[in-house]
Amino acid sequence: MPDITHVKALLFDVFGTVVDWRGSVARDLEAFGRQMGIERDWMAFTDRWRGLYQPAMEEVRSGRRAWTILDVLHRESLVKLLGEFEISGLTDQEIDHLNRAWHRLAPWPDSVEGLQRLKKKFIIGTQSNGNIALMVNLAKHSGLPWDVILGAETARAFKPLPESYTRNVALLGLEAGECMLVAAHNNDLAAAAAVGLRTAFIPRPTEYGPSQTTDLKAERDWDIVAENLIDVAVKLGC
Amino acid sequence: MPDITHVKALLFDVFGTVVDWRGSVARDLEAFGRQMGIERDWMAFTDRWRGLYQPAMEEVRSGRRAWTILDVLHRESLVKLLGEFEISGLTDQEIDHLNRAWHRLAPWPDSVEGLQRLKKKFIIGTQSNGNIALMVNLAKHSGLPWDVILGAETARAFKPLPESYTRNVALLGLEAGECMLVAAHNNDLAAAAAVGLRTAFIPRPTEYGPSQTTDLKAERDWDIVAENLIDVAVKLGC
Repeated sequence: MPDITHVKALLFDVFGTVVDWRGSVARDLEAFGRQMGIERDWMAFTDRWRGLYQPAMEEVRSGRRAWTILDVLHRESLVKLLGEFEISGLTDQEIDHLNRAWHRLAPWPDSVEGLQRLKKKFIIGTQSNGNIALMVNLAKHSGLPWDVILGAETARAFKPLPESYTRNVALLGLEAGECMLVAAHNNDLAAAAAVGLRTAFIPRPTEYGPSQTTDLKAERDWDIVAENLIDVAVKLGC
Repeated sequence: MPDITHVKALLFDVFGTVVDWRGSVARDLEAFGRQMGIERDWMAFTDRWRGLYQPAMEEVRSGRRAWTILDVLHRESLVKLLGEFEISGLTDQEIDHLNRAWHRLAPWPDSVEGLQRLKKKFIIGTQSNGNIALMVNLAKHSGLPWDVILGAETARAFKPLPESYTRNVALLGLEAGECMLVAAHNNDLAAAAAVGLRTAFIPRPTEYGPSQTTDLKAERDWDIVAENLIDVAVKLGC
């Protein structure tokens, strides 16, 4: 077991690590389509939507665009895709409702129990590119028992920029080595480790669907490598 | 019953409203004194410490001083008071420990149950001049089940400045009328009401000790006037 005796706070990547964004958004879009009598390949729509996620954040990370929260980026991408998929005539309220599909994501089966166990021993917080409102609504929707909502909006920087981690560590009044990032993405963990955080990896092999090829396993010797969030709790003695 | 059907989030003043800062800090200082063999009037020390609270924040509110979190202001006041009370020879760690007395405040008897009930129906969050680390540690110490930690640090403005409320409302993606401030202080509620928030008052008649003369009752017709946080839950149908 690695020396994690100084860890006081666990910070979690959320999309993919704690919740199943792909299945959830696709189901949400499908339900909306059924209700509106619109038939489309909603899984393809979901994948395209997520495909626009990194490029949209990159505009902000690069400094070409002023700080903008994810809800706004998601909505811009959504409007673009509605055009691409030839869906027209939606009201602003309907588009807002669709955009908030990201506020209604379902947790993976082990997430709530794992977080509840970890919360007894550690501060547990989000470290997500999602904005505060999104994270709060998601937590209420899915019963995620966070102690604190942190992330890109509190740091005013998207992951994996170094300050997206270090500013949140500072907001907790902690040192980087007192915080551990828990994520299903090796690149996220690498960026956190580079600024001194401890790391825990869990695989989410169907996050991107049945033919996912990335992040199927730990690519480095992270402090903790576990099966899922319950197993993280076990490995951290909770 | 007022029209509070649109309220989605309850934001709470914390010092005095949710926790008993005076009794808690005095007991904490007393225990430290006993351990160190230092006898002083720790209740007087506590009152003096709180007495320096508003003037310290006023330096920041006025713009004479750059944004500074409450932990730092508290510590500066503490160092000043250690001199006044002729207490010397403490290490930096010991001073830090004393300063974190504000992270270890005890809730009033109704607070945890009241919050737990309110949490089932509303987003519940802090709206405190305390910084994030202070609020998170306090919640862990006292079992306060916040959905989100907001306040002066997320708004980068101390209450009762208007932006201390409005920026946090915006971070929740809500309108002011969808948020209700719960506080034991009429001036806090007046400032929140002035920018459109709904209001709930509860008295904490011994917050400042047995001879308290202020905030013994609601000074305006706030949306809710209740006995304590459990009664707020009852009055909000939780």
